[in-house]
Amino acid sequence: MTEIKLTVQAPTLVNRDFVKPTLCGPGPCDVWPSVNEALTKPVISPICDEHFYVLDDIRAGLKYVFQTNCDTVLALSGSGHGGMETVINNLVGPGETLLVAKGGFWCERALEMAKRYGINTITTTVPMNETFSLQQLENELRKHRPTALFIVHGDSSTGTVQNLKGVGELCQRYGTLLLVDTVVSLVGVPFFMDDWKIDAVYTSTQKAFSGPAGISPVAFSDRALNKINNRTHQPPFYFDVKLLSQQWNCYGSTRVYHHTLSSPLLWALRQCLQEVIKETLPRSWARHAATTKHFLKRVEQLSLKTFVPKPEDRLMTVTTVVLPKGYDYLQFSKYMREKYNILIFPGIGQTVGKTLRIGLMGVNSTIQVADAVADAVAGTLIALKKSSL
Amino acid sequence: MTEIKLTVQAPTLVNRDFVKPTLCGPGPCDVWPSVNEALTKPVISPICDEHFYVLDDIRAGLKYVFQTNCDTVLALSGSGHGGMETVINNLVGPGETLLVAKGGFWCERALEMAKRYGINTITTTVPMNETFSLQQLENELRKHRPTALFIVHGDSSTGTVQNLKGVGELCQRYGTLLLVDTVVSLVGVPFFMDDWKIDAVYTSTQKAFSGPAGISPVAFSDRALNKINNRTHQPPFYFDVKLLSQQWNCYGSTRVYHHTLSSPLLWALRQCLQEVIKETLPRSWARHAATTKHFLKRVEQLSLKTFVPKPEDRLMTVTTVVLPKGYDYLQFSKYMREKYNILIFPGIGQTVGKTLRIGLMGVNSTIQVADAVADAVAGTLIALKKSSL
Repeated sequence: MTEIKLTVQAPTLVNRDFVKPTLCGPGPCDVWPSVNEALTKPVISPICDEHFYVLDDIRAGLKYVFQTNCDTVLALSGSGHGGMETVINNLVGPGETLLVAKGGFWCERALEMAKRYGINTITTTVPMNETFSLQQLENELRKHRPTALFIVHGDSSTGTVQNLKGVGELCQRYGTLLLVDTVVSLVGVPFFMDDWKIDAVYTSTQKAFSGPAGISPVAFSDRALNKINNRTHQPPFYFDVKLLSQQWNCYGSTRVYHHTLSSPLLWALRQCLQEVIKETLPRSWARHAATTKHFLKRVEQLSLKTFVPKPEDRLMTVTTVVLPKGYDYLQFSKYMREKYNILIFPGIGQTVGKTLRIGLMGVNSTIQVADAVADAVAGTLIALKKSSL
Repeated sequence: MTEIKLTVQAPTLVNRDFVKPTLCGPGPCDVWPSVNEALTKPVISPICDEHFYVLDDIRAGLKYVFQTNCDTVLALSGSGHGGMETVINNLVGPGETLLVAKGGFWCERALEMAKRYGINTITTTVPMNETFSLQQLENELRKHRPTALFIVHGDSSTGTVQNLKGVGELCQRYGTLLLVDTVVSLVGVPFFMDDWKIDAVYTSTQKAFSGPAGISPVAFSDRALNKINNRTHQPPFYFDVKLLSQQWNCYGSTRVYHHTLSSPLLWALRQCLQEVIKETLPRSWARHAATTKHFLKRVEQLSLKTFVPKPEDRLMTVTTVVLPKGYDYLQFSKYMREKYNILIFPGIGQTVGKTLRIGLMGVNSTIQVADAVADAVAGTLIALKKSSL
């Protein structure tokens, strides 16, 4: 051993203690205690039956939360952005056209991803605190007849929720696949993949699921599967749903190794699904709506305006709140963290300097947390008025 | 709530207890107790200082384990296959040439990935239980002058370790970038990124790191960075090191949000690095060598042959063992699990039906575990001879 000369000496990593704030931004959210516990369950090896049981459980749970009877349902090993890549690159090839309904920040990401694959992109836009009408979408679909339409259900950058009823029918009429981002909506807001005729959907686990980030559930309709089976392009190996669905045994006959899944994230996702199943979806939706409506009432009592004018456009997981003139959004968020140990976010992208983003999701979607955040907002309004305005 | 009609009813997920076997396959490996604990540390939010500290710690630790002073060092949010995609798609564009040194199973994956990006692929081959000579590699480099050479350091499908000393010099001579897979070698086997002039390397955390899968450390040389900054192609957004290095603050001035990292996996990776730092790299390498050499001695005493004939080609993390005629590899592995609760793997790809794959890595790289596995192999040899041969 003495002859080994290291180029780089070992660093010292200091263990710092910190008091975790209550996570009331647009995500990551706090996790269920049972999910935290599930992270430490025994490692499952990809050649063991236990591994297969967990995958099967996750698929069953995901069919429930997506409300789909389709078989191509699995979880991608990556963040929500990995899920976004997956729905795009599996269904739209180079030279094909993707219509992006452009409201907040996340559709910009979809555009960026699509362009890198040589996909033709077209956008249709609404003001960032509004949502799309069926009429506007139909006009664009009729005009371009794109391969797919990408639209965000719940947008954490703007606090809007897009009505999706009827969009699927329009897409089918014009031969277009419907791709939906439900990262910050699923489990918190009603969503019906099959009823709404959605062709591809992805979500994230660190929002209303109250789980850890790093694994992204995705689902594909039979129409989408048909495209996957007949496409002429090939997505990156890592994201290929044709291969992943064999690893996840989506069709009941395959257990083909594709890559090594993350054991703690599988256990955690399974436990998130157990929590939803225990509560039931309708009760989870109702709880999120009740909490956020209560919070909105508290916000109105403080004479604050919500960023999203129409009540029906307001997302029931992340609320966007406009501060009176003179307040600085970043300073406001920092004060909330320092004084009340509550983490909320300022805007992102177009909404920088225009709104606070406050998430009451998953385990934090309770009247108690909503009141604590509202109280802290009230206190911060006073404190920063006195000290700096 | 009564008006909501669900398309899919909630499933029942049965909680099954199982006794985790000792994980002595080629991975995933058992995790350090401290790493299991780290998984449950508080969620860190991407806008908090705590998050930045953890990223900085991880980068410092990774520079140590990769033995590099280069700055483009970070962890990809995905499995080792995500790391493989990243080193390939960041450095080789459509129409450029990738030379793949083809021994075991994993280089097949690299070929498959590269082809999907429109990269020209060339292979040079050795028998699967041997490794490449500098002469063979130089002949190919001289002939093709490829953009990059992809080579596997430790191969878990064959149990070989490739000598890399001198390969970097050859690559530089022919204007080729050197991409190396260290998934099953890093921390278990000596590796010197800078000294060996390696341009891009990735690894995995569920092998000799004894951590959970799902996060893949990668590092790029300054030569590679130059290529990244001047390339004409664009890799997928999710894998783009140009963007990821801004999120990871590789150059000391940026904290740009790219995607939400997995909090438990960040904590776990940081703790894996703490374990290596505590032990030191030279001691970790020495421990793996001592354990595997002891195991090889035990195997020889059982009159079993190792799959890799030359001692210098044998990997010190995963050992491949040939069974006498008449034994079935799958049955043998199953018996080991059922009777001794030790999980070993049969072959994969070309090595199916040719070898057992036994991993003594990370927390399981001890004389005690080596003896337990050797005892179980001895018992299984007798049991299956009596019962079925």
